[in-house]
Amino acid sequence: MTVVLKLGGSVITEKDEPETVDRAALSAAVTAIVESAVGDDIVIVHGGGSFGHHHAAEYGVSTTAGTHNVAGVQAIHGAMCRLNAAVVDALTDQGVPAVPVHPFSAATRDADGALSLPTDQITTLLDEGFVPVLHGDLVAHAGEGATVLSGDELVVELAPAVNADRVGVCSTVPGVLDEDGAVVDSIESFDAVAAVLGESDATDVSGGMAGKVRALLALSAPAVVFGPDALPAFLAGESPGTTITGDRGD
Amino acid sequence: MTVVLKLGGSVITEKDEPETVDRAALSAAVTAIVESAVGDDIVIVHGGGSFGHHHAAEYGVSTTAGTHNVAGVQAIHGAMCRLNAAVVDALTDQGVPAVPVHPFSAATRDADGALSLPTDQITTLLDEGFVPVLHGDLVAHAGEGATVLSGDELVVELAPAVNADRVGVCSTVPGVLDEDGAVVDSIESFDAVAAVLGESDATDVSGGMAGKVRALLALSAPAVVFGPDALPAFLAGESPGTTITGDRGD
Repeated sequence: MTVVLKLGGSVITEKDEPETVDRAALSAAVTAIVESAVGDDIVIVHGGGSFGHHHAAEYGVSTTAGTHNVAGVQAIHGAMCRLNAAVVDALTDQGVPAVPVHPFSAATRDADGALSLPTDQITTLLDEGFVPVLHGDLVAHAGEGATVLSGDELVVELAPAVNADRVGVCSTVPGVLDEDGAVVDSIESFDAVAAVLGESDATDVSGGMAGKVRALLALSAPAVVFGPDALPAFLAGESPGTTITGDRGD
Repeated sequence: MTVVLKLGGSVITEKDEPETVDRAALSAAVTAIVESAVGDDIVIVHGGGSFGHHHAAEYGVSTTAGTHNVAGVQAIHGAMCRLNAAVVDALTDQGVPAVPVHPFSAATRDADGALSLPTDQITTLLDEGFVPVLHGDLVAHAGEGATVLSGDELVVELAPAVNADRVGVCSTVPGVLDEDGAVVDSIESFDAVAAVLGESDATDVSGGMAGKVRALLALSAPAVVFGPDALPAFLAGESPGTTITGDRGD
């Protein structure tokens, strides 16, 4: 069984403190992975949190608006690589054979913004017993210079490429919330929840929960959105939080 | 005009001192690039020198013998990323819009050892005015774990992908040398020089001059092998050192 797990940037960083890892939260997530039965059949993607988003906002870069400023590229990409190194180190410290994969080195967008992410390197690393760790990043974008490539986009690209049986999105909230703050158990179309989906609190160049749900609905495998406390349950095969089931697989 | 330039690891590092950049040599190479008319139509590849080779030797990793040891992967790949950061910094310090591209994040070898390197990200970065800087690295290798991907292999993959007009290999020697130590002006087949091609002095997991010549003969564009002093001449359009012309383009 292959799992694609997204660790939200807000989960593993202090989102309002520039470039600060939340080491306790990161360590707890790694422990949950180590103590699960998933083994090394897992691809991990993490978001930007306080590493990527502040720099992206400073340079006015989003998934559609790019920069040709090399200082901007270095600030954003460099910060994400530092966070990635912290995540890879936390994993290897607990014995997970984690290796970094930087999307900026592999992916492109064409002039229409369509993403191409080569994935043979990911499947080969998995087959060889390594745990690839990707991250929200920049991507070379025809006509725009470099734009943001969000962790959520990566999850959507990776899940079919690795034939993921399960897709988990670990966020700071316990699932997709309705207008009363209660967790929505299950989502099967965007229209059904469009009215209740707000944007996330802190700066998030990658679209918040609405963008997440829209993207995950496009997957054939069901995706589960849950909070940090529910990571062990997700890895044990349960479906805590919100299960998002699109129609692509039907 | 697009140039692919390889900066040998021995040129930009103190090859016998672990993980030591030769800052004077690196700075001189960057100055030659800045003062040339090449502009940003250049892809730079650098070798491992004292960053990659010692670690690769320690873990017994070559272009064909791999490792599944994640500590080995991190030692070798991590060292190469540190050297790459030094090269990118040296370039941006002099105003070159350099961005890092890590081959381990993009490439694979199949079970027969054949290399696949996606290159759309490289051509898009070039088109957008960035200067991609790649490096000798590890690569996910089916059945072997991770093997070495040499800078010379990268040059051979990149030159046709970016439609390179000129390919330069800046080495510590002034060209390919014959048995008397004189520079061979021109090479058109491997057999003609096989007898005089020795291995390089220090530890080099990537095949030394013999491997370089063999690889460069496979290119359609002529490749020029020269020493550091001749870099300005090469970038000015001259062909110092040894010109290697294969038959693929005929």
